Amino acid sequence: MDSKRGDAVERILLSARKNIEEHGILGLRVADVAEQAYSSLTQIYRYFGNRDGLLARVLGDIYDEYLLRGLETLMDRLSGHEQLTTRAVVDAIPPLTSPMVVHAQGVRLQILAAAVTNEQLRDRLAEITKLNLKRWNNALDELESRLAPGEKFDRRVFTVALSMQMGYYRTLMGDDGFTDEEYHQYLVDKLTS
Amino acid sequence: MDSKRGDAVERILLSARKNIEEHGILGLRVADVAEQAYSSLTQIYRYFGNRDGLLARVLGDIYDEYLLRGLETLMDRLSGHEQLTTRAVVDAIPPLTSPMVVHAQGVRLQILAAAVTNEQLRDRLAEITKLNLKRWNNALDELESRLAPGEKFDRRVFTVALSMQMGYYRTLMGDDGFTDEEYHQYLVDKLTS
Repeated sequence: MDSKRGDAVERILLSARKNIEEHGILGLRVADVAEQAYSSLTQIYRYFGNRDGLLARVLGDIYDEYLLRGLETLMDRLSGHEQLTTRAVVDAIPPLTSPMVVHAQGVRLQILAAAVTNEQLRDRLAEITKLNLKRWNNALDELESRLAPGEKFDRRVFTVALSMQMGYYRTLMGDDGFTDEEYHQYLVDKLTS
Repeated sequence: MDSKRGDAVERILLSARKNIEEHGILGLRVADVAEQAYSSLTQIYRYFGNRDGLLARVLGDIYDEYLLRGLETLMDRLSGHEQLTTRAVVDAIPPLTSPMVVHAQGVRLQILAAAVTNEQLRDRLAEITKLNLKRWNNALDELESRLAPGEKFDRRVFTVALSMQMGYYRTLMGDDGFTDEEYHQYLVDKLTS
């Protein structure tokens, strides 16, 4: 990609992101995105095909960033430990009730819901999900290699159970739901069994 | 509620549901709902407060029906068994890849996403979620009482793990994801450990 075209694409993406932050996913108006990016509708449609294509790119990027940040946060928290225990790995998972996690739930939910009616976004999220599985398997390889003698975990808890987890359901349970401590104990039990 | 008011409310709810089926959650136009229900904007706002209130009622009802149907389907499939095994309980869970389940995922996702920006809907979903937890605990009491001698299950797999499960993530994994058989084996392992 030549740099002039690259600059235009970057400006459009930045403008679309700002527009989404202000008006939500559904409020995105391509004409406003064009104006704020010193671009035109014609140019945006040339680069992204249509409104769905633009959304697939921007929302896919945001979705991917959230996933990456989640994994990086976990690995950073464990970087101080020379030898790991399964309990330490579980305790490094951010609590489901933390404001950061609750915020990320809302963003991810809205992007996933948009994918139900936006096929290009669905394809992009499928790609990202598969890439994310690979990243997690690499991270789990590393964590397993650092486990203290006698420690073990069943990685299916990550690749089967946690990979399908939607924390928003826990938020909806309110005071009737399990506590963060009960949740961590559950994970330790299932990882070590 | 007198029957005349009750009839009007029923007509409005039916009309709103039709409108959502045709145009999606976001396309719901209260003026169209009023017209198709032989009602008026004034009447709808008197009964439901505002557009969010109407959506909270209709989408909450749909959400609740999906949850109820999920539990009833499971219990129906197990009704033929006098004595249960943990494997039979797991095999009665509909596969994540079945068209019925994939369709339900999309509907639930869109309703959950709408709740992120509609406080009345969020409150309603929280109520429904808590009611659903009670229903599941009652169902699990019954299933446990019917387990064959020597069989057991850890009900946290249902109340902690499955209650937070978003099958749409599995759909996004495509061929890179675990199979239905691997998933059932995982559940059996974790329920019995």
